[in-house]
Amino acid sequence: MSMKAVVFRGPFDVGVEKRPKPVIRDPTDAIIRVKLAGICGSELHMYRGIQKTAAGHIMGHEFIGTIEQIGSDVHKFAVGDEVVSLFSPVCLKCWYCKQGLTNRCTEGVAFGTQKLDGGQAEFVRVPFADGTLNLVPSDLDESLLIMMCDIFPTGYYGASRAVEGLLNQHQSPLTSFRNTHTAKVSFKGHNGHMNGSTNGLMNGQTNNYTNGDAPLDRLGSSVVVCLGCGPVGICAITTALSKGIKTVLAVDSVEDRLSEAAQIGAVPLNLSRFNILEEVMSRTQGRGADAVIEVVGNPAALKSAFELLRPCGILSSVGFHQDDLPFTGLECYLKNITMNFGRVPVGTVFPDALECLKENQGALKNYVTHELPLDEAATGFDLFEKRVARKVVLRV
Amino acid sequence: MSMKAVVFRGPFDVGVEKRPKPVIRDPTDAIIRVKLAGICGSELHMYRGIQKTAAGHIMGHEFIGTIEQIGSDVHKFAVGDEVVSLFSPVCLKCWYCKQGLTNRCTEGVAFGTQKLDGGQAEFVRVPFADGTLNLVPSDLDESLLIMMCDIFPTGYYGASRAVEGLLNQHQSPLTSFRNTHTAKVSFKGHNGHMNGSTNGLMNGQTNNYTNGDAPLDRLGSSVVVCLGCGPVGICAITTALSKGIKTVLAVDSVEDRLSEAAQIGAVPLNLSRFNILEEVMSRTQGRGADAVIEVVGNPAALKSAFELLRPCGILSSVGFHQDDLPFTGLECYLKNITMNFGRVPVGTVFPDALECLKENQGALKNYVTHELPLDEAATGFDLFEKRVARKVVLRV
Repeated sequence: MSMKAVVFRGPFDVGVEKRPKPVIRDPTDAIIRVKLAGICGSELHMYRGIQKTAAGHIMGHEFIGTIEQIGSDVHKFAVGDEVVSLFSPVCLKCWYCKQGLTNRCTEGVAFGTQKLDGGQAEFVRVPFADGTLNLVPSDLDESLLIMMCDIFPTGYYGASRAVEGLLNQHQSPLTSFRNTHTAKVSFKGHNGHMNGSTNGLMNGQTNNYTNGDAPLDRLGSSVVVCLGCGPVGICAITTALSKGIKTVLAVDSVEDRLSEAAQIGAVPLNLSRFNILEEVMSRTQGRGADAVIEVVGNPAALKSAFELLRPCGILSSVGFHQDDLPFTGLECYLKNITMNFGRVPVGTVFPDALECLKENQGALKNYVTHELPLDEAATGFDLFEKRVARKVVLRV
Repeated sequence: MSMKAVVFRGPFDVGVEKRPKPVIRDPTDAIIRVKLAGICGSELHMYRGIQKTAAGHIMGHEFIGTIEQIGSDVHKFAVGDEVVSLFSPVCLKCWYCKQGLTNRCTEGVAFGTQKLDGGQAEFVRVPFADGTLNLVPSDLDESLLIMMCDIFPTGYYGASRAVEGLLNQHQSPLTSFRNTHTAKVSFKGHNGHMNGSTNGLMNGQTNNYTNGDAPLDRLGSSVVVCLGCGPVGICAITTALSKGIKTVLAVDSVEDRLSEAAQIGAVPLNLSRFNILEEVMSRTQGRGADAVIEVVGNPAALKSAFELLRPCGILSSVGFHQDDLPFTGLECYLKNITMNFGRVPVGTVFPDALECLKENQGALKNYVTHELPLDEAATGFDLFEKRVARKVVLRV
């Protein structure tokens, strides 16, 4: 049996071809009849010829559909279930999966590459279906659900690492260990005007260092910068605002992206019209941003992220970096910086990210600008590559 | 009135001289009659002439004593209180202090430098006494209490950042936000064999990704490396073990330090006798260490820390780095690394660190190897510089 599929033929050349319908190879496989498939920004690296790859594979790592067939070792799904896939299989059995570090699954290879055919097709084979698939929720538009395969969890992760870092900091460092070291202190040489705290507090004071504000109040007053307002940036901004950050400064050079960022509640700053460092400093009494989410993936963005941060700031980077780091060990020491890098553990954050997306689906309702039939995939790639489309989905 | 003080005269030259007894300059000052003062490893940079500085100031940023006099704006202490000082003043009033980021206090300058005379003297002036001093606890030996001025909080911070990072990871990423995004999901296209979880769990399963182990159990099975077993390293190892890490691999090239590390419960690994990378890999099924605490402060140690880590590992660095970072952006992305750098917020961690030190005072009872009278400070510096002494304290 054959099917239609979007095949990568070489740079700037994708097209619909006939391919054999995939079959179950391993007992943990499922075959999905695809309903909707997205074109993701990360596919443009390959499309533009920047990421060199052989030709011939089926594109697409964002797809939803119906289970057509399952292997004998698939236990969580049945034929007929409507499902949404992760961009990369998750085996659930390796050491990393068991730790929740699904971004490091030893079986993880991205759909839509030479190693694993993708979902821009009538059917797709999904390895490790129990870990890779999730049921379609009833209360989310399916064009937005496509965002759950990759870009929303990625943006969610970038923003959450930043917010989590600030929340830990605002709760004052190391409070999570207070339970194991409950203060049971007595003092000597004491004149009787103090209570029994370990660091010399007056009666009625609760903490030397927090000024009495609740951590969530102080989280709200944080200033967070998002460098890059493409699809992942918009998801990151949505998450940061949803998690209680009131001031998100959205930095990009594309006006259409900035207007979308502004529409969801961020402060748009066009790189070509503003001195971003001055803007950030003027909004933070000269300190710098509390956290920066970096989704761009080049050294200039990373250098800017570092410079925009205040001392003890948090740099959360989900951009794909291929160069040297544009700052020194001395700068890191002097800034007391916290940094995290790399790809989202999409399987692990999926449930929380889904809730966040659902809560914000109203604000993101214009996110998908183009829905095309599968046969017009080439047009879809062209529109997306030229930034005419914000997001393209293909209906099968 | 004059007093005796240990004065820095130039590289390898300190000596006791007569100096004017300090007086209250600002209403937030206190004058301390010093009882015991430590010689800290970080003073050796200056002593050895590596850290260039003018001569003439009084040495020492580790000291305990009795309050002799207070300014009119000191509210938490009274004359006669026995107190222990932080290595650097903490104003409690600046933005950073109010956030608990006392390592970035805008008034923070280290004692024992050109900017602020130190505590290796009969008396010392302490600025911002309310934030800089803590009452002496009754249940800790005073020679160990000297560790609370700097090295124990520093090691505690390095270890805690590592353990905290692992604990967050083991609780699965982003769980701290679950409360704001409680799952309220209904499904469509569902065949009735599953419960209402968002990611397709069977009834009775609680989480796809944690294998049912409690976070603290998995924390215990983590492998943590401490690079550097000098005074701060020993404090870091003590903390890591105290917080539930069962396997701490202690790396150094000095046998005396390694035997102390072994005595408190770490696995000693002599750099000159072991291939550390092979040792770590063989103890982690080839993955690498879950976290590395780096207290050395040179590029070779930082490079080693990076290499020893597993994917998604945590690099907690408290070493003072002055060079380029010995790894690239691509390596950071591919390793999904989390890193933090810089100096301890000593005022903030003091209470928790003190509890940890008290719990472990038995294991550390041999920590101070030499107690000398103030007059023999020059001998103390010499013994410490030559690594004959592990730790020297001066009794005034």
